Amino acid sequence: MPKLNEHYQNLKENYLFAEIARRVAAYQEAHPDQKVIRLGIGDVTRPLGARAIEGLHAGVEAMGSADTFMGYGPEQGYAFLREAISAYYARNGVSVDAEDIFISDGAKSDTGNISELFDVDNVILIPDPVYPVYVDSNIMGGKQIAYMAGNAENGFLPMPDASVHADIIYLCSPNNPTGAVYNKEQLKVWVDYAIANEAVILFDSAYEAFITDPELPRSIYAVEGAKRCAIEFCSLSKTAGFTGTRCGYCVVPRELTFTASNGTVMSLHAMWNRRQSTKFNGTSYIVQKGAEAVFSEEGMRQCQENISYYQENARVIADTLTKLGIRFFGGVHSPYIWFECPDGMESWAFFDYLLSNAQVVGTPGAGFGENGRNYFRLTSFGSRENTIEAMQRFEKLLAAV
Amino acid sequence: MPKLNEHYQNLKENYLFAEIARRVAAYQEAHPDQKVIRLGIGDVTRPLGARAIEGLHAGVEAMGSADTFMGYGPEQGYAFLREAISAYYARNGVSVDAEDIFISDGAKSDTGNISELFDVDNVILIPDPVYPVYVDSNIMGGKQIAYMAGNAENGFLPMPDASVHADIIYLCSPNNPTGAVYNKEQLKVWVDYAIANEAVILFDSAYEAFITDPELPRSIYAVEGAKRCAIEFCSLSKTAGFTGTRCGYCVVPRELTFTASNGTVMSLHAMWNRRQSTKFNGTSYIVQKGAEAVFSEEGMRQCQENISYYQENARVIADTLTKLGIRFFGGVHSPYIWFECPDGMESWAFFDYLLSNAQVVGTPGAGFGENGRNYFRLTSFGSRENTIEAMQRFEKLLAAV
Repeated sequence: MPKLNEHYQNLKENYLFAEIARRVAAYQEAHPDQKVIRLGIGDVTRPLGARAIEGLHAGVEAMGSADTFMGYGPEQGYAFLREAISAYYARNGVSVDAEDIFISDGAKSDTGNISELFDVDNVILIPDPVYPVYVDSNIMGGKQIAYMAGNAENGFLPMPDASVHADIIYLCSPNNPTGAVYNKEQLKVWVDYAIANEAVILFDSAYEAFITDPELPRSIYAVEGAKRCAIEFCSLSKTAGFTGTRCGYCVVPRELTFTASNGTVMSLHAMWNRRQSTKFNGTSYIVQKGAEAVFSEEGMRQCQENISYYQENARVIADTLTKLGIRFFGGVHSPYIWFECPDGMESWAFFDYLLSNAQVVGTPGAGFGENGRNYFRLTSFGSRENTIEAMQRFEKLLAAV
Repeated sequence: MPKLNEHYQNLKENYLFAEIARRVAAYQEAHPDQKVIRLGIGDVTRPLGARAIEGLHAGVEAMGSADTFMGYGPEQGYAFLREAISAYYARNGVSVDAEDIFISDGAKSDTGNISELFDVDNVILIPDPVYPVYVDSNIMGGKQIAYMAGNAENGFLPMPDASVHADIIYLCSPNNPTGAVYNKEQLKVWVDYAIANEAVILFDSAYEAFITDPELPRSIYAVEGAKRCAIEFCSLSKTAGFTGTRCGYCVVPRELTFTASNGTVMSLHAMWNRRQSTKFNGTSYIVQKGAEAVFSEEGMRQCQENISYYQENARVIADTLTKLGIRFFGGVHSPYIWFECPDGMESWAFFDYLLSNAQVVGTPGAGFGENGRNYFRLTSFGSRENTIEAMQRFEKLLAAV
C-alpha cells in the first residue's frame, strides 16, 4: 500500500474561503431576500483594460494559423514578457535582469512551490497573521514553522529579533491581510539580518501596485544587498485584474547561492529553473501576450484607472472606520483594510454578527493566524455602490456598539 | 544558512531537450546553409481548430466587460469543462464523474506534482524507457525508483512481476517515447496486480487521441476495478494542439483511499484537492473556454483533422523504416516511432550521425532511460513536406548502412 504524505493530516480542516463560502451559502439559503454584499475574498471585479484585451485577442489569433502558431514555449516565459517586466521594475527605480525573471501562472503557485527547493531541516519564520499559502505549503512538506507576531504594537510589521536565528523568512508587503507596508529602513533591517544570518527572504510583493508614496519600496530589490538574500514573487492579479486570466512572476537572482553539506555551491536560480523545467510547461502564450500588453504605456494607464477606483473604495471604508472610532491598519497603499473587531469580539463571531445584522461578508482575521483572532479584513475590490452601501450598514450597526 | 534540497544534486545535468537544442544550435552555427529538419521534440505544429479559436476569443471578450468578467475560478476547474470532459470519456465508452476531474495547466504539472501526495518510503515502479518527468520529479523528492525494463522482447510494454511488490506504478500508454500501447488484457493484469498489492497506478494517457483501434483502451478506467487503484492524467496538448495554450486534466477517483499509519483513512482525491487549492489558483478562464470548445462536436472533428494529418506522417515514417528493414515500435495509435539504431549504434552517436549526414533531428533513446540507449525516437508532428523529405534523406543514408 502506498504510504501517503501524512503531513496533510496536520493541515487545518477547511481552507479559509471555503468555510466563508459555506457560511454565506447557508445564510443566503435561510434568507433568500437579503442582499449580501461581499467584501471578503481578495478578488478584483473591474474588467481588464482595452490594451490587455487586445493583447489577448492577438495571442488567440496567432494560434489559428500555421505561420504564427505557438507550441511549447520556454518554461521560464517568453523573453518579450520577461523584458517588459524588467522594464517595469526599471520604471519603478529598481534594476532586475530579465534573465532572473520566471513567468508563471500566478504567485500562489510560485509561493507554494518554492518550498520544494529547501530541506525539511530549516528555521522558517512566517509572520502571523499572513496569507495562508506560506504556512500550508510548508506544513505539507513536513516543515516546522516559527511564527513572528504582527500586532497593533508593531503596526503588523514584525521586525527581526537579532538574538534569534532564521534560515528562511517569508515577508509580504503591502501585507495580506493587514495592508501594512514596510518602509525602506525597515526592509533594510530585514536584508541586513538575512545577510548576517545567511538566510533567504521570500518576499511577496503581489500588492505593490497599490503603493502611491514613492518613498515606500515596491520591491525588496529597492534595498541594497537584497539580491544576495531575497527571492521576490509578484503577480498581475491585483496589478492588472488577472485573477481569472492567470499570470505571475518571480525573481530568483543568480547571485543567490548557498553551500550544500558536501561543499557544492548550489544556485537557487538554477534549482528553480530545473524545478520549473521539470514540473511546469510554461504559461499560456495567449496569457503572456495579454501580460505584455499590460506593461505597455497605455496598458499601465488602464490598470491605474482600476487601481484608483479600488483605492477610492478603500478611502470610503477607512473614512467610515475613522468616523466610528474603530482602529484599523492598511487602507492606504493596499486594497485591504484590517480593523479591530468592536467590543473585543472574536473574528468568526464578528463574521457571523456582521453577516446576520448587516449582510456584509468580510474575512475573519483568525483565518490568517492566531494574532488575527480579534481582527477583520475588508477589501476594496467591490463596486463603489456596494462599498458605500456596506459602509452605510456599518455606520447603522456599529455606531450603536 | 538555508539547507537546500540536496536531492537536486542527483538529477542528471541537462534536461534532454536542452541538450538536443544545444547540439542542433552548434551544428547550425557551423553549417548555416544546411536545412535541418526537426522530428525530435514532441511538439505539434498545426494551428488550433476554428472552434477552439472561437472559444478562446469568447473567453477573452468576457474579460473585457464588467457583466461577464471572470475573477478567481474554482481551483478544480469550471464545471462546464469538467462536464465536457466527462462527456468525452462517455463517448469513448468510459464513465468518469465530472466531480473526479481536476483541470490544470497541463499533464506535465500534474504528473510532476502528484508525487507530493506520497511519502518518501514507497516502492515506486517506473518503466525504462519513459517520459523523464516521472523520474526527475521523484528524484527531486528524494525518492527511490525501481525501474522495469521495456525492450524489444516485451514490445516495450513491461508487465508486472507477481513476486515483486510495488506501492506506486507509473504507466504511459500510448507510450512516450516508444509509441507502444497496452491492450485491455494487459491493463487488466496491471489493475489486478495493483489491487492485489494495494498499489496505486499513475496512468498517463496524454496520447490517447491517437488510438484508432476501438478495442484498445484509451483510458485505464476502461478496465474494471481501475477506479479503486488508478489516477489518470491527460492533456489537450496532443489531442487539440494545446502545447502552447496549456490545458490538462487528471482524474482522481473518490474511491481511491488508503489507510495512514495512525489508522486514518486518507483520500487521494481530498489530498489532491487540497494540494491544488493551496498551491494552484485554477487554469485561465480563457483557456478553459477554448478547451470547452475543443470538446464540442465540431471542435472534436477539427482536432481529428489534425490528428489524421499527423497519423499520415507516422505512416510515411513507418513505411520508410519497414522498407529499410529497421525494427521499430509505435507509429500506429501514437505520434511516436521508436526504432533500433542501425548497426547497434548508441543513440547519441546516432543522433550526431543523423544530424551531420542527413540534417534530421530526432531524440536519442538514451534520454528516456538505460533501455533506450540503442533506440531513437521520431515524431510525426512535422509538416508533411518535411517528413517526406526527412524520410528521403533516411533512405539515401541508411540503405547503405
